[in-house]
Amino acid sequence: MAREEGSADDIRAILGNDEAIKAYREEKLPFPDGAIIARIAWSYDASEENNKVFGRLAGKVVTSQSFVAGHPKNGVQFMVKDSGKYASTGGWGYAQFDDGKPAGEAVLKTCYPCHQAIKARDFVFTRYAP
Amino acid sequence: MAREEGSADDIRAILGNDEAIKAYREEKLPFPDGAIIARIAWSYDASEENNKVFGRLAGKVVTSQSFVAGHPKNGVQFMVKDSGKYASTGGWGYAQFDDGKPAGEAVLKTCYPCHQAIKARDFVFTRYAP
Repeated sequence: MAREEGSADDIRAILGNDEAIKAYREEKLPFPDGAIIARIAWSYDASEENNKVFGRLAGKVVTSQSFVAGHPKNGVQFMVKDSGKYASTGGWGYAQFDDGKPAGEAVLKTCYPCHQAIKARDFVFTRYAP
Repeated sequence: MAREEGSADDIRAILGNDEAIKAYREEKLPFPDGAIIARIAWSYDASEENNKVFGRLAGKVVTSQSFVAGHPKNGVQFMVKDSGKYASTGGWGYAQFDDGKPAGEAVLKTCYPCHQAIKARDFVFTRYAP
C-alpha cells in the first residue's frame, strides 16, 4: 500500500502494566485478571528534514523514506482484564479517552466486534516485540 | 514512497536517559554532558492477521494497512554527549552493538557525516514526541 503524506496513518505504541508484560514474556494465555494494555498513537508524518539528509547520501532523489511520530492523536485506548466483570466481551473491558474525557458507550461498542477476530490470542492483536 | 513488503524498512524507538529526556522536555540545546540517546530497531513487517481483520471490516480488500514490529535488528546505536572528549565530532561519541559486540571504527566513522546535517539541533535527528 502506498503511504500518502497527510493521510490518516498513525504510529502506535502499545504499553502494558506489570501483569500484562509478565504474561507476554512468559507467553501465557489468557492474560490474568488485572492485566491492562494501553494504546497511544501519533500521526505518522514524513520527515522533510530527515529525507533531505538520507536522500542526499543515497545519491538519488528520495521523496519520503523517513517517517516520524507527529502530533499525539486522540483515542487513548485501554483494555482491562476482569474475566468476571467483563465476561460478555471475552473478559476484557474497553475504554477510550479523547482529550482526557471518557468516550461513550456507542464508541466502546465498536471495540469487541473487531477484537473477536483474534480470540485465539485472548483478543489481543499486539504481539510482544523483544 | 511505496512500502514494499520484505523490504529493508524498519521501525525504531529512540530512548534517552534522564539527562537527555529532561533536555528534550525543556527544549534546551545543546544537550548537556552525560546525555545518552539510544536507538533500537525492529523489522517493519506487514501483519497478515491484522490486515485480514481490518480489510474485512472496511468492506473491501486491503492488502497491507497494518505494520508491526518484527524481529529485532542489529545495530543498537548510542550517542553519548561529552563535549570535551568528543569535541571533534560535535561533542557526541557514537557507538553501535551488533549481537552484543561493539562495531569497529570503520562503522562508527559513518555516523558523524550524516549527523552533521542536523547541526542546528545539536546533531540529533529525533524530535521529542509528547
